[in-house]
Amino acid sequence: MTDTLISVDLSESPHTNENVHNRWHPDIPINVWVEPGDDFRIETYDWTGGQIKNDDDASDVRDVELQQVHYLSGPIGVKGAQPGDLLVVEILDIGAVEEMNWGFNGLFSKKNGGGFLTDHFPQAQKSIWDFDGMFTKSRHVPGVKYAGLIHPGLIGRLPDRAMLDMWNTRESKLVATNPNRVPPLAELPNTQSAHMGAMKGDAREKAAMEAARTVPPREHGGNCDIKDLSRGCKIYFPVYVDGAGLSMGDLHFSQGDGEITFCGAIEMAGWLHIKVEVIKDGMAKYGVKNPIFKPSQIKPVYDDYLIFEGISVDETGAQHYLDVNVAYRQACLNAIEYLKKFGYTGAQAYSILGTAPIQGHISGVVDIPNACATLWLPNDIFEWDMMPNANGPTKYLDGSVDMPMAPDL
Amino acid sequence: MTDTLISVDLSESPHTNENVHNRWHPDIPINVWVEPGDDFRIETYDWTGGQIKNDDDASDVRDVELQQVHYLSGPIGVKGAQPGDLLVVEILDIGAVEEMNWGFNGLFSKKNGGGFLTDHFPQAQKSIWDFDGMFTKSRHVPGVKYAGLIHPGLIGRLPDRAMLDMWNTRESKLVATNPNRVPPLAELPNTQSAHMGAMKGDAREKAAMEAARTVPPREHGGNCDIKDLSRGCKIYFPVYVDGAGLSMGDLHFSQGDGEITFCGAIEMAGWLHIKVEVIKDGMAKYGVKNPIFKPSQIKPVYDDYLIFEGISVDETGAQHYLDVNVAYRQACLNAIEYLKKFGYTGAQAYSILGTAPIQGHISGVVDIPNACATLWLPNDIFEWDMMPNANGPTKYLDGSVDMPMAPDL
Amino acid sequence: MTDTLISVDLSESPHTNENVHNRWHPDIPINVWVEPGDDFRIETYDWTGGQIKNDDDASDVRDVELQQVHYLSGPIGVKGAQPGDLLVVEILDIGAVEEMNWGFNGLFSKKNGGGFLTDHFPQAQKSIWDFDGMFTKSRHVPGVKYAGLIHPGLIGRLPDRAMLDMWNTRESKLVATNPNRVPPLAELPNTQSAHMGAMKGDAREKAAMEAARTVPPREHGGNCDIKDLSRGCKIYFPVYVDGAGLSMGDLHFSQGDGEITFCGAIEMAGWLHIKVEVIKDGMAKYGVKNPIFKPSQIKPVYDDYLIFEGISVDETGAQHYLDVNVAYRQACLNAIEYLKKFGYTGAQAYSILGTAPIQGHISGVVDIPNACATLWLPNDIFEWDMMPNANGPTKYLDGSVDMPMAPDL
Amino acid sequence: MTDTLISVDLSESPHTNENVHNRWHPDIPINVWVEPGDDFRIETYDWTGGQIKNDDDASDVRDVELQQVHYLSGPIGVKGAQPGDLLVVEILDIGAVEEMNWGFNGLFSKKNGGGFLTDHFPQAQKSIWDFDGMFTKSRHVPGVKYAGLIHPGLIGRLPDRAMLDMWNTRESKLVATNPNRVPPLAELPNTQSAHMGAMKGDAREKAAMEAARTVPPREHGGNCDIKDLSRGCKIYFPVYVDGAGLSMGDLHFSQGDGEITFCGAIEMAGWLHIKVEVIKDGMAKYGVKNPIFKPSQIKPVYDDYLIFEGISVDETGAQHYLDVNVAYRQACLNAIEYLKKFGYTGAQAYSILGTAPIQGHISGVVDIPNACATLWLPNDIFEWDMMPNANGPTKYLDGSVDMPMAPDL
Repeated sequence: MTDTLISVDLSESPHTNENVHNRWHPDIPINVWVEPGDDFRIETYDWTGGQIKNDDDASDVRDVELQQVHYLSGPIGVKGAQPGDLLVVEILDIGAVEEMNWGFNGLFSKKNGGGFLTDHFPQAQKSIWDFDGMFTKSRHVPGVKYAGLIHPGLIGRLPDRAMLDMWNTRESKLVATNPNRVPPLAELPNTQSAHMGAMKGDAREKAAMEAARTVPPREHGGNCDIKDLSRGCKIYFPVYVDGAGLSMGDLHFSQGDGEITFCGAIEMAGWLHIKVEVIKDGMAKYGVKNPIFKPSQIKPVYDDYLIFEGISVDETGAQHYLDVNVAYRQACLNAIEYLKKFGYTGAQAYSILGTAPIQGHISGVVDIPNACATLWLPNDIFEWDMMPNANGPTKYLDGSVDMPMAPDL
Repeated sequence: MTDTLISVDLSESPHTNENVHNRWHPDIPINVWVEPGDDFRIETYDWTGGQIKNDDDASDVRDVELQQVHYLSGPIGVKGAQPGDLLVVEILDIGAVEEMNWGFNGLFSKKNGGGFLTDHFPQAQKSIWDFDGMFTKSRHVPGVKYAGLIHPGLIGRLPDRAMLDMWNTRESKLVATNPNRVPPLAELPNTQSAHMGAMKGDAREKAAMEAARTVPPREHGGNCDIKDLSRGCKIYFPVYVDGAGLSMGDLHFSQGDGEITFCGAIEMAGWLHIKVEVIKDGMAKYGVKNPIFKPSQIKPVYDDYLIFEGISVDETGAQHYLDVNVAYRQACLNAIEYLKKFGYTGAQAYSILGTAPIQGHISGVVDIPNACATLWLPNDIFEWDMMPNANGPTKYLDGSVDMPMAPDL
Repeated sequence: MTDTLISVDLSESPHTNENVHNRWHPDIPINVWVEPGDDFRIETYDWTGGQIKNDDDASDVRDVELQQVHYLSGPIGVKGAQPGDLLVVEILDIGAVEEMNWGFNGLFSKKNGGGFLTDHFPQAQKSIWDFDGMFTKSRHVPGVKYAGLIHPGLIGRLPDRAMLDMWNTRESKLVATNPNRVPPLAELPNTQSAHMGAMKGDAREKAAMEAARTVPPREHGGNCDIKDLSRGCKIYFPVYVDGAGLSMGDLHFSQGDGEITFCGAIEMAGWLHIKVEVIKDGMAKYGVKNPIFKPSQIKPVYDDYLIFEGISVDETGAQHYLDVNVAYRQACLNAIEYLKKFGYTGAQAYSILGTAPIQGHISGVVDIPNACATLWLPNDIFEWDMMPNANGPTKYLDGSVDMPMAPDL
Repeated sequence: MTDTLISVDLSESPHTNENVHNRWHPDIPINVWVEPGDDFRIETYDWTGGQIKNDDDASDVRDVELQQVHYLSGPIGVKGAQPGDLLVVEILDIGAVEEMNWGFNGLFSKKNGGGFLTDHFPQAQKSIWDFDGMFTKSRHVPGVKYAGLIHPGLIGRLPDRAMLDMWNTRESKLVATNPNRVPPLAELPNTQSAHMGAMKGDAREKAAMEAARTVPPREHGGNCDIKDLSRGCKIYFPVYVDGAGLSMGDLHFSQGDGEITFCGAIEMAGWLHIKVEVIKDGMAKYGVKNPIFKPSQIKPVYDDYLIFEGISVDETGAQHYLDVNVAYRQACLNAIEYLKKFGYTGAQAYSILGTAPIQGHISGVVDIPNACATLWLPNDIFEWDMMPNANGPTKYLDGSVDMPMAPDL
């Protein structure tokens, strides 16, 4: 059997595990080493470290401590990998663990995390998704069933000092433009609940004060939330430190493009089986700054879509200039309105868009002043026929089942 | 044979054809009427009305008169269609015409149109693409060949008066925030080269002064530049005026998501074979504000991609807040750098991204402060192996062939 | 525009056209020559040369003269192609002609042609299929609509003398095992209605007496009836005579694997746009005896199938030894029974299996004594939901519409 | 976690496990019962019960005792299922077990099992395939790597007495036509190594004497070896006995259509996670005699094929009448010749055809006297470019690595 290089015990706090961390810093020590060509398994916590329960009460979503996220397994060292190389990571397989054969999707409170449509859904809500082998469905969102496209929401390598400094500098500058904003424009370093892996003592304290949060995607990949980084894909990562220092976590059973609900996919604990190789001096050879990847040949095939358009005119009717975010938000809102005609509540529809294998395309970005974005909703996730016809929609749901809500206190 | 309801003569000016127009206005008369259930053919000019030639001189791209665009064929009336209905348009087939069995892609001068990467490619350049049946290739961009996914870049219906007023109001407001900007923030009504269909005399003059330009996509669809509106798709359009008033044009042989080169796809003249039906009161029944559509089962299958990530940190290193446009621009620039390692010039790489069936995905929009966008480049369009390997890239091209450039005067 | 090298006039008999023939013989002169790398267009008759009409009377199917088939356009010479080379043929596009925007499917009388299920459907019946752009439907078979996967049922090269002799020898031997069988075991040379292209006089008479019929597929390709030889495919053909002598015809708008109705696909006249190249000495280099090909990236995507199994136990309950023909016949009969539960007549169901893009797979050929074959029926060709559910099938059709029948006289 | 209803211990003989059997008989008791709607896990032996080892010696393949096959896990009873119902089985997931993270492919000796090409490959050979997550490769067959399409080669339900009698009668009749043939025309009941599940004593002896071997597929499904019965598929099975009596085994990691090597796929032990439901009286409602199924949306996408044709003229040049078996054998032999040009040995090529996700299509079965079959070889399983080009094939392999052979004694 393939060796499991990092194990996690879901019944224990992630802070007890030295092969877990939730910040990016060059000094986090690499305790686990492999050779190029090796394949091995890694276990991971869910991104919150177990804060969300399989129940019908959304108060855990409302009260989640976001300073803890994301608990990553690693860093793993690859012998011989040096700055300037490309680290090739192949995801051979990925799955759930026996102790947690379910996942969660949360609409975060606008006061604690929010989401892409937080102005429309400002209160905490959650849905629980059970895994039936390769499929999932939810007692809170009837009538849908998806094939999993399981992927790590977050996979990256340790930054070197220069890169860390660059991150902190540019993000601080952004926050400084509106320092009192809620939510903030960026999450700056914050020692609360920092987990610095095997670091200890003063070195740990010092590093935690300057370590980058794991929230955004950056040059090293990180929290990209790309649904297509699934089993069978091959990723080419820039390397910044000796050994590369590869870490990963935030597994998703399924997610729509954009991860619009923020907590965002169907979040899960689990394991990955990966293989690593190195392309020496690959960054310069191929001109690679951000990761590139080849997606998998193994994927759920959904070829029957209903597509919603959105343009960059916002909910108030104001015209924005080629703004894809506004356009995609309108496409999402248009899809939600459509789903409501069939009986879904707004929260359920929002949760479907966040968790199903929807595609979000940048369709037009040059036709001033309107960007055009499209949201691709796969018809085959529904038990029912959801296409338009001359008779109008059938209201399949009566609203009696909804996602639990925990209003702000 | 199917009736051709609107014919165009490419050797004549579009202004001589009363079934062509290049502005949106409710008073443009509907001269061609069909019944729900009818199928018929429509011919169209290319979007510029023949301004670009099949030669190796880009001065026509530099000097293009953009006030003329887009020449649309229509409006077509569908009997019984009323405001509030959904007009269902099925594209049964679509193709090139014998007289113009080629198309063009242009990088517009920053001073006259620009494009998504105009700061990087400020001068006019063009490439000519020959059609070999269902495929295209270019003497200016060696080593690539695509299967066509022919689609109308622009298809929409006449607005009613209220909608036209709304468009003009909101776009004027935007322009007013920076009225002297070059290029402008939006293209406001402009009588130069306006073609108002069959309108004549004072009514024509008055309407031209207030008619909306066809440049942006809007609620009625319009210039969406969605590459998936190809043969076999079915579109559900909101209706605003009696008869719907359907017009279309700006055919593209192939285009990448975003149409980033602005002139942007492989632009062509051609014909469409379409069928129309009506869903009475469909806008309210289905909650439809913008068009929705079901894409075709007939499409080139490209399943082997190399994917480039971009985040919302711009070329200067400045951090933007969840800005998908910046992120996608970085993904595009990353892909261009990669292609240059194999010998393509920057302009050729840019032209490939604009014309090939690339996908542009909104991958993450909630992980502050970085949006993440991905550009999906299909490997199978290349004659050569373009995947990374341990040996580094092969330089297949020596730069001796490039796209003609016409520097600004 | 691309040159049309062979034109046909559907209002004239194919026998008036010297670039058409309906037999294989090395002496049929090559009148049309192209260079390697050329692309060009070819027009073709339907396989019967216009014997079947667009009406509701199946007597033309019953009375069809099969000695005439198949009318092929060619032979085309490729300069420099020599015996032992591979001729590379790329189908760039393919389509219907304006004068015949429809096709036909026939169940042949058991006494005149028959078909795979002729014991179950012994009488002549026909269905007419109208082409709506890329799609087809039939007034005789309600509730189905297919995207076309247009292909030449027959494409091959002239045999040399040795190959012709081999064909005649082996087929004669087979016929000799049961010379009075109706239908015969093979169609031996037969001068009735032979069309030898540009041959004249005694040479023509002599050649017609020994020329091979075009009915079966053979080493040179020929009447393979492979539905996937559609637009965008690339075929590598063995070459036996100088210039290769490429001919083609028997276009099908759509066909299921096996072409089980014999007349079998949706048969049509039309045109092909092809490109030719030569691989010198390719037969030996690649060990190629029969044609090989790369299918197209452009195809209707049908990914939602209902699959029927059949085993090699025949309709009487008799056990056959690993006989894929019996197994596939059972799979076909099983599918027909299923379709009848939804209201289709047997003939309609049979016609659907012959014309729709069904797949026929050889699933098991080693598990004695039963072969297992599977028939893949694409759900998306139906207007209705055809999947099993707890309530049982809905009878969508009342049998009032059927395919016209012409009983044997 | 999902309950595992049947466990197997690979270190113990399958004959010690009462929930395993290797014959079909109505009296095999159902010890494990579930409710409609339940989902559960089942473990299985490999089909030989562990006779083949992970080593480089093929004598175990040569000496395999075929009277033992196939070891099935079951029968499982579904409460309320009655004769005439359809049992709906959904394969939610399927995988390998930790103790056996590899599989085997064997070419059986012509004297002991044989295979589709046994006249060409009469000696026992084997290849071992390691599983890397969702992928497999073999130290005996370099240069190929497949994504798994894991499926049960064998899944069926207990026959009732009438069905068992019918099987025995028809198969005996076939054997009687040539009773001394080696290999036999069918495997008749045989008590040697029979495993009758929980049956004991005289009842066991009596039942073993009349129990059907599991070798062929039959009306109940059984050993269909359909590669598409993979994770995510939904099968509708006829029911013959109260409780249905569902059994399964013979897991394959990957297989080509036809399972031409007989031992034939990549054979493995493993587990299935399945869900069962019942459609009352479904056999009559839907006219179902053999199983029907809907394949999965989750599958490896291989869209780039090289296709080989074969016609029903055999290796000696003799003409057969519309014989798909002969045609497919020729297509296989053609593919093997092609692969040998790139350096593969014949045995390696044969093993690739048996184990890779190739498709075998029945392309033409009506064009007398030649059937036409096609073999679809996915290009993307190869490390190398295997397409024809003007330069001829590259010989990537020097023959130094081959599959171990154990000559007949």
